[in-house]
Amino acid sequence: MTKLADWFETSNDATKVLLRLGARPDVISLAGGLPAPELFPGDAVADAFAHVARDQAAVSLQYGPAEGIEPLREMIAEQMRAEGATSVTAENVIITTGSQQGLALIGQTLLNKDDRVALDEPTFLGALDAWRPCEPGYTAIDWSGNAPGFKPSDDTGAMPKFAYCLPNFRNPTGETMALEQRRALVAAAQRDDVVVIEDNPYGALRYEGVQPASLLSLADNGGEGPYDGHVIYTGTVSKTLAPALRVGWMVVPQRLVDGIIISKQGLDLCTSPLTQYAALRLIETGVEAETATRARDLYRGRRDAMLAALEKDMPAGVTWTRPEGGMFVWLTLPEGAESRDIFDRAAAAGVAIVPGDVFYAMSPSRNTIRLNFTNVPEPVIAEAVSRLAGVIADRARDAA
Amino acid sequence: MTKLADWFETSNDATKVLLRLGARPDVISLAGGLPAPELFPGDAVADAFAHVARDQAAVSLQYGPAEGIEPLREMIAEQMRAEGATSVTAENVIITTGSQQGLALIGQTLLNKDDRVALDEPTFLGALDAWRPCEPGYTAIDWSGNAPGFKPSDDTGAMPKFAYCLPNFRNPTGETMALEQRRALVAAAQRDDVVVIEDNPYGALRYEGVQPASLLSLADNGGEGPYDGHVIYTGTVSKTLAPALRVGWMVVPQRLVDGIIISKQGLDLCTSPLTQYAALRLIETGVEAETATRARDLYRGRRDAMLAALEKDMPAGVTWTRPEGGMFVWLTLPEGAESRDIFDRAAAAGVAIVPGDVFYAMSPSRNTIRLNFTNVPEPVIAEAVSRLAGVIADRARDAA
Repeated sequence: MTKLADWFETSNDATKVLLRLGARPDVISLAGGLPAPELFPGDAVADAFAHVARDQAAVSLQYGPAEGIEPLREMIAEQMRAEGATSVTAENVIITTGSQQGLALIGQTLLNKDDRVALDEPTFLGALDAWRPCEPGYTAIDWSGNAPGFKPSDDTGAMPKFAYCLPNFRNPTGETMALEQRRALVAAAQRDDVVVIEDNPYGALRYEGVQPASLLSLADNGGEGPYDGHVIYTGTVSKTLAPALRVGWMVVPQRLVDGIIISKQGLDLCTSPLTQYAALRLIETGVEAETATRARDLYRGRRDAMLAALEKDMPAGVTWTRPEGGMFVWLTLPEGAESRDIFDRAAAAGVAIVPGDVFYAMSPSRNTIRLNFTNVPEPVIAEAVSRLAGVIADRARDAA
Repeated sequence: MTKLADWFETSNDATKVLLRLGARPDVISLAGGLPAPELFPGDAVADAFAHVARDQAAVSLQYGPAEGIEPLREMIAEQMRAEGATSVTAENVIITTGSQQGLALIGQTLLNKDDRVALDEPTFLGALDAWRPCEPGYTAIDWSGNAPGFKPSDDTGAMPKFAYCLPNFRNPTGETMALEQRRALVAAAQRDDVVVIEDNPYGALRYEGVQPASLLSLADNGGEGPYDGHVIYTGTVSKTLAPALRVGWMVVPQRLVDGIIISKQGLDLCTSPLTQYAALRLIETGVEAETATRARDLYRGRRDAMLAALEKDMPAGVTWTRPEGGMFVWLTLPEGAESRDIFDRAAAAGVAIVPGDVFYAMSPSRNTIRLNFTNVPEPVIAEAVSRLAGVIADRARDAA
């Protein structure tokens, strides 16, 4: 059991821990960010790959264009237009090796050492990983006053190079940005000429409520395409088909397209055309939409199970978010509690969680925990939350 | 036709040009670096993906470990040991999204701005693309005197951060490094504590002659594994199965493994487990070995056709390399000739080539050309070389 905690200490690298924890049978893991494997449409994926490799071998098995295959880019552009970003064309769409690569590409293309990135903490760990080689600084988005905005650097007076957010069911908190916030952020981006990255891996996983307009659609002036506004959008089929396809996409303002494509060539020449054609086929034949529907049904029940278990078992003083979608609930322990402590004790009790401090770039909170509810059946969620609540209650007694 | 030349001017980005040129039916392309699509084992790839997606959906369609799946890493390690690097274990092997990603990872992990990379010019364009975001400087490997070596920086006295070479059938020249050179380079690396990258995408494509020992095997002390020597090795199945698998690997000295894995997570979390399991199956069932054998037979004939056509048609004063393997022949025009000129005229005559200057990081030669012989049937190679020879002869007359 100590091995779990060791991983954190030796690798100092939580993503690695999360991926590995997901594979351990002796622990109930609420730690990862993994889709439920029972959703994976294995037979349909098998058919799609077999069809493409057999019937289009010469094209699908060769190197392909760095920006991605044309028909998939057309289809994504159409989807973006249908969601309100009406000037987006295929020229704006770049296929990436998962949306993680989109974040890496943005860093490589835009960030120089000591440039600053504006974001709300806590935030997606993978984004911080993607940008670490660029050695940026971080600054909070300023939500105070009448209008949100970006603070110029104390040293140089420069605005942040870009802002980053996950408006839908943010990893790690599960929170969704309200429409007024979205409007204000896009207005600030346009006013201060700062690009905003809208990272939207979870958008299709809404279990209740109404979807606010995307930042991309709010930044789109609705004129003739290609789009050239102040938002870069990243999406993926990892949560609606399967992570292992490693097919994501970016919607990139026209003025940045060439730079991103050049960076993309440097990273991996091109995303697998085989996988792109297979993903296209899985979208066209409705497999993606059907898988997303099944995911929403399954995950809604698991979210409800987690919220019910938290309500039932957690000691007083512990609070948590109530996400309308996505994969995560964010727990806040009473002031002074140390989630790293809880991590070790929970591991000993057979439950894996993620201490919240790893999701911070600036001012880590020591008393927060991320819980995932998508990868574990409902009764097991209840058992895991019960064990975790016991650990937290014990710890509070010990400290008292 | 002018569009070809335009691409060079507008994008300033030859890799993009190469990929796109390969797709144009109106031009005979000797420009790309593409395998022959008639070699792609489409049916076997279809079967492998279908089998894996159907029978191992829960694992093969999920996120996987950043370093790659264990059985593929074990198999690669075994192959490396069989080729003389006897202390290599699976711990040294990291699966990458094509070997291009291996180069990007090395840059992200080791290079800071203004660090220097030592290499022989001309060199692989993709390596320069991979490292561009890191803004390194370049320096030549010093082959003068009794022993080759690395020059310390004039400013800081620092040694290069690493050296880079393609010992087998180098892109773009087709040249192979002799055993004595290999020994001397590894000795220099050990003496000066400089890591050498052995990039070996073409090693399996040898059409004649004896394979010298790999730098990796020369750097391996033969002791207990894991390996921790002065060579990083990168390999790929792109040339022996199909580029679109996007499965490559690195053999990384033990002391650098953790850093590379952290960088890998930042770039794309993991290489597709689906594709890794399929590649493993294609290697295990002998499809890769059989495809490589067919490739050698096909490409040997095409190389011979190109060398014969050059001998027959090229005007006096033009010289070229005679590669023992790989994909490229390197042409040197008489002093004063401009290969960019030839590029435009050749495009007008329906032949695409690559002006050699794009393959330089320091001192571009203006009178060199790279020719690819793997992607075009023998009679078409003869026709293309004949047209190109005509263009070069015309240009020489015009200039005279």
